[in-house]
Amino acid sequence: MPSTSVAEELAKKQREISVSEFFERNKQILGYDSPTKALLTAVKEGLDNSLDAASDADILPDVLVEVQKVDKDEFLVIIEDNGPGIVKREVPNVFGRLLYGSRFHSRRQSRGQQGLGISGAVMYGQVTTGKATKITSKVEEDDVAYQVELIIDTKRNLPSKVREDRVVWERVHGTRVEIPLKGRYVGGRQSIPEYLKATAIVNPHARITYKSPDGETIISERATEELPPKTKEIPPHPHGIELGTLMQMMKETKSYKLSTFLEEEFVRVSSRVAKEICEAASLDPDMKPKSLGLEQAKALHEAMQSSKLMAPPTDCLSPIGERLIKRGLKNVLGNLRPEFYAPPLTRDPSVYAGNPFQVEVGIVFGGDLPPDQPVEVLRFANRVPLMYQAGGCALTQAVANVDWRRYGMEQRGGQGLPFGPAIILVHMCSTKVPFTSEAKEAVASVDEIMTELDLALKECGRRLKTHLTKKAHRAKTKEKFDIVQLILPRIAEKSAKIVGKKVPVLDSTITKIMGVVWVDELIAYDKKAKRHTVTLNVHNFTSAGKKLNLHVLLPRGVSTSSMDPKPSEVREDGKITWELKRIDSVAKGSVTFTIDGLDEAEYDESEVYVSGINPVLVIGAEPLPGDWELNYHEFEGEEEAAPAAEEEEGEIDYDETEEALEDE
Amino acid sequence: MPSTSVAEELAKKQREISVSEFFERNKQILGYDSPTKALLTAVKEGLDNSLDAASDADILPDVLVEVQKVDKDEFLVIIEDNGPGIVKREVPNVFGRLLYGSRFHSRRQSRGQQGLGISGAVMYGQVTTGKATKITSKVEEDDVAYQVELIIDTKRNLPSKVREDRVVWERVHGTRVEIPLKGRYVGGRQSIPEYLKATAIVNPHARITYKSPDGETIISERATEELPPKTKEIPPHPHGIELGTLMQMMKETKSYKLSTFLEEEFVRVSSRVAKEICEAASLDPDMKPKSLGLEQAKALHEAMQSSKLMAPPTDCLSPIGERLIKRGLKNVLGNLRPEFYAPPLTRDPSVYAGNPFQVEVGIVFGGDLPPDQPVEVLRFANRVPLMYQAGGCALTQAVANVDWRRYGMEQRGGQGLPFGPAIILVHMCSTKVPFTSEAKEAVASVDEIMTELDLALKECGRRLKTHLTKKAHRAKTKEKFDIVQLILPRIAEKSAKIVGKKVPVLDSTITKIMGVVWVDELIAYDKKAKRHTVTLNVHNFTSAGKKLNLHVLLPRGVSTSSMDPKPSEVREDGKITWELKRIDSVAKGSVTFTIDGLDEAEYDESEVYVSGINPVLVIGAEPLPGDWELNYHEFEGEEEAAPAAEEEEGEIDYDETEEALEDE
Repeated sequence: MPSTSVAEELAKKQREISVSEFFERNKQILGYDSPTKALLTAVKEGLDNSLDAASDADILPDVLVEVQKVDKDEFLVIIEDNGPGIVKREVPNVFGRLLYGSRFHSRRQSRGQQGLGISGAVMYGQVTTGKATKITSKVEEDDVAYQVELIIDTKRNLPSKVREDRVVWERVHGTRVEIPLKGRYVGGRQSIPEYLKATAIVNPHARITYKSPDGETIISERATEELPPKTKEIPPHPHGIELGTLMQMMKETKSYKLSTFLEEEFVRVSSRVAKEICEAASLDPDMKPKSLGLEQAKALHEAMQSSKLMAPPTDCLSPIGERLIKRGLKNVLGNLRPEFYAPPLTRDPSVYAGNPFQVEVGIVFGGDLPPDQPVEVLRFANRVPLMYQAGGCALTQAVANVDWRRYGMEQRGGQGLPFGPAIILVHMCSTKVPFTSEAKEAVASVDEIMTELDLALKECGRRLKTHLTKKAHRAKTKEKFDIVQLILPRIAEKSAKIVGKKVPVLDSTITKIMGVVWVDELIAYDKKAKRHTVTLNVHNFTSAGKKLNLHVLLPRGVSTSSMDPKPSEVREDGKITWELKRIDSVAKGSVTFTIDGLDEAEYDESEVYVSGINPVLVIGAEPLPGDWELNYHEFEGEEEAAPAAEEEEGEIDYDETEEALEDE
Repeated sequence: MPSTSVAEELAKKQREISVSEFFERNKQILGYDSPTKALLTAVKEGLDNSLDAASDADILPDVLVEVQKVDKDEFLVIIEDNGPGIVKREVPNVFGRLLYGSRFHSRRQSRGQQGLGISGAVMYGQVTTGKATKITSKVEEDDVAYQVELIIDTKRNLPSKVREDRVVWERVHGTRVEIPLKGRYVGGRQSIPEYLKATAIVNPHARITYKSPDGETIISERATEELPPKTKEIPPHPHGIELGTLMQMMKETKSYKLSTFLEEEFVRVSSRVAKEICEAASLDPDMKPKSLGLEQAKALHEAMQSSKLMAPPTDCLSPIGERLIKRGLKNVLGNLRPEFYAPPLTRDPSVYAGNPFQVEVGIVFGGDLPPDQPVEVLRFANRVPLMYQAGGCALTQAVANVDWRRYGMEQRGGQGLPFGPAIILVHMCSTKVPFTSEAKEAVASVDEIMTELDLALKECGRRLKTHLTKKAHRAKTKEKFDIVQLILPRIAEKSAKIVGKKVPVLDSTITKIMGVVWVDELIAYDKKAKRHTVTLNVHNFTSAGKKLNLHVLLPRGVSTSSMDPKPSEVREDGKITWELKRIDSVAKGSVTFTIDGLDEAEYDESEVYVSGINPVLVIGAEPLPGDWELNYHEFEGEEEAAPAAEEEEGEIDYDETEEALEDE
């Protein structure tokens, strides 16, 4: 056929597609690819909204999640919260229109952003059951609630009310949504209870009640009464902002001067910085933003990118925090007893495309954890657990990209998920999480984010490695002790017989052979007082007296309630230093401190360092890292050699033993 | 603050978000998460459009893809095709509006569907460079082309023209788009050349010219001049249609009778079937579709689901086909020589949510392929290669779900990507591919699709396994031959000496000991004539004469050009049967046939079966599968025992050898 008629024919078919129609045909993009997943997604969207609403109003969330079985494959999902409620005129829009919401244009961390989630659930419900969703909402000063049943008119992407009414509701304020939908109810890792559990872990201030289809009720109580600090709205950070976006902003700005535009519409841009940027771009600070041409805009853009700027403020973000991560991991483990919690890590905030973000990582290792399967990766984004699309998620990818063999885990070819007895928790929070799809199941692999994740994971890996080495090291030396204690007396006896002398006393001899300074730790926990009592013993198993400094680095947010002896320095960042007085050969020195208010599992090992001594002599503590600069007496040269260092631990050097005997 | 004011405050913030704004802030959802990926995505979208346009107009596609480096991180992507062109009035809409297109409402296989792809690229371009996209298009009867430079007004999701013009263009008809964008140009697996190569493989009718930023030109010529059969538009299939969707259709239908509604708006519903469905739902076939209530609709819906219906017609789909899959794999391998191509498999079409779909799988194994890494999975959807999001894709997932250990590949714990020297190609085509996001990088795990994929992969696995077993089997017997030939003469000599007789002739003895019927295959290829000459030899190494039937199953779409001897049966599905005349002990029979028009690599092994003989006697051919029912003489009981079956091949039964000698 002649091509024109084709072109014309195609032209006739050309038309706009309403966003609802689009998602009606692409349910899977919103997370409704299977009945099983659909049920979880609906719950997720409802709960996200409830938690966001509560935090908007500084309310401690109290949410009911209920799933009722209506028919063999039809369910009713009910989410009810104690949030501020939604004003009557907005209810139909919020639930009956896609891409309609309040958070899209605000730069701050929240769960929902797109104005797609809950209306998507409503649409999936009507498409699969032909039924409407019922919403009940009450704001404080109304004495009755507003109730409406609606479906979405997908052709026009507008709510169409089936019934509306005013009803009496005992709640002072809050919202309740009841969505009928086709689903399948399953247990297991991706089940609703698991999802709620994971949510509770990272939202310890929320009270979540779950009523399952089989009528059982699970209540997860608050772990804390304090709200997480409310996140603030901020303007974009200049770093990573796109040129086109910048130009758009200049078109729309109300400021008359370029400098004020920069100052007012970007974070971390003081008037001084603004001037510097204009200068670097050789642009007049007083010129009208609207008047910039493409080339000038480009220059400005480059100047902004290369300008030294403070990292974005953290108050727009709400990370989980190291303490909660650890508690969370504890929670997940239930009664599994791991061997070691690598101290969790919360990186400082960074920026991608003008959006501040922060990553956090925690690792728990060993003990009862299954050794022969891939490590479990727990993913969270803006305090929301991610249950699906693990394979397509940057958080998983980052874990797979690390060579875990270097940190003591098994990993074929040094990439892919490592095998081993470990759980890795990864959280990414941002004013704008770049999800791979509207279902918000996976984070996209944005370069800046991958870099931060990589750094965090490797640091945690190192912490794990340190622990494992320390453990191996101690084992070795212990072994050596045993051997020496076993063999030496025999040698002594034999040689005594030969030379006809009486058997010598061996303590100091053994000491000399060991030639190590042994640091061990005892932690006692008093449940009632919620008090950890930590004792660090320093045994001098060398032949000379030793003087050294002991350093402890406390986890962020943890501080001591008492210390003995009084340390010579305590820093805000949790670094504590004791200058121990000389410990004689075969003698022992110790320090004790207490920590209050933590759960037992929250403190199970101290990060201990030493300085002022040849570190190779020391077992059970690491040499003080260089970045921890000192302001007191330096390393005193060791007169004696350090056998423990030169020889393979665990082996015995008989000549030395001989010598030792001759000394007697 | 009192909750109301919060509610009111939030209400004030509530607003609709334009679809362009949404994607402007969620570029990653359209596939623009990183500069590297952005470049590929833009090329992909442009090429998809060009190939779709060409097939709409039954034109053999001739597409130019050019990437120019403009600036350190700015590129210009140019796609020019010989398609029908776009009429002037529609150009701005097609390129300047999101969710605007011609294919969204048509149920047939095409690359583009959403009306998001190319306009998404335009938007990414303007956001990252501040520049407009230039489009030039010409339809046949215009003698000049229409040219426009435009950006998208994201607030309103409408095109805003920067410049438009009429220009002279040598092309009779076609479209050229030039998109400026921020990107990074890389090589490797996910590079543009790789993408184009993969595209050419599954679109052998397309001619694709690529000009790289470094100025080199790569042309991939057509492998065939024939267009793939044009896909037809079809109404939905009743199976899997959602209740809500059905009710919507009944609201909108123009038919006055339920029966006609079913007949006209669904595929595979004859008037008889329509009546049956109404009956099963106990509804009056003459009632108005609009008048059905929810309960009636439900009944109708259930009746539709449980009704026996033909599978959807295939003419709405365009699978790659077994021959092309094999050629494609060959292409990917370059000069790597694999050991074996498992015959590719194209499943019959199936349905999910009313959408017909089809899956195809091919496996190539061994040879030079790297043995010690995860198998490579090549993913395609509607003839488009999928380069990203492998981990989050149903096609990869399906491969990971199969226990490949059963098919001779290494796989820890029987799940995850197997390790081994193999490449697995998976293609899924449908009138509606359920992508996990608008970037169309991964297919969602829809149950029906997972099932089909699983069946296809396992079947290919079995084919691989069969090959490997056959290989092992032959090796074993070969070994036995060698040993017998080596040892028997010695025994003969020795025993001859002892009894003072002359050394006996051993051929028939060896034969008896082997007790097998050996089938081997010789394939000669004549490049000029493009002719495969296949010879199958049947050696009777048993002590009795043997009669048997030889069966060959040719790959779909392949037929013989000559056969000798004349077979006793040739079926359309490529099943050929020869009733061989009796072969005496130690004698040999053979059949020869030729195949014309295939590349050498396209035929390298025949699927050979035997019947009418105790299959355990046969090496080099499988027993005829049960489903290949026979209509000629059946299995003739074997009088003699079948040593090859009873004893472990390769070992020698000396008693038997003795007996054999006594026979002399």
